[in-house]
Amino acid sequence: MARFMDVHDGFVGVTAQQLGEAHEADLAIEGEEGVHFERAWLDPEQGKVFCLSTGPSRDHVARVHEKAGHPTTEIYEIPVDIS
Amino acid sequence: MARFMDVHDGFVGVTAQQLGEAHEADLAIEGEEGVHFERAWLDPEQGKVFCLSTGPSRDHVARVHEKAGHPTTEIYEIPVDIS
Repeated sequence: MARFMDVHDGFVGVTAQQLGEAHEADLAIEGEEGVHFERAWLDPEQGKVFCLSTGPSRDHVARVHEKAGHPTTEIYEIPVDIS
Repeated sequence: MARFMDVHDGFVGVTAQQLGEAHEADLAIEGEEGVHFERAWLDPEQGKVFCLSTGPSRDHVARVHEKAGHPTTEIYEIPVDIS
């Protein structure tokens, strides 16, 4: 299992509730792809969303977001994590 | 105090140790700007680094990274955080 950060554009003006609904849509189907979305962060001014997940591959992460209605092609595998 | 995600390019082939050293360089001076870097993630294949921080403003975060020798202009304020 690997860890991923993916990035979405175009979320200008999105509210916390709307992000929560989008995240719930991911959580509802992520099991089909063996993915788990751990966290998400939103900059509603610049319209950026960052999602932190674990899963088998970038393609699996991409499929969850696509099925949930908010596709992105910008997905990074992040084997190095400092906390 | 606000929360920020910043993004760096060009870190292709960087090792965990090198990222750790860059992160330590931030931690050593972050107090001067009232910033704290909480986490960092690296994709050494695509050369991307993501840093999660708290601080007074984007400019303060930018100054720490600049002083530490790895400037970026891509900094997002992320008031919405789902975990």
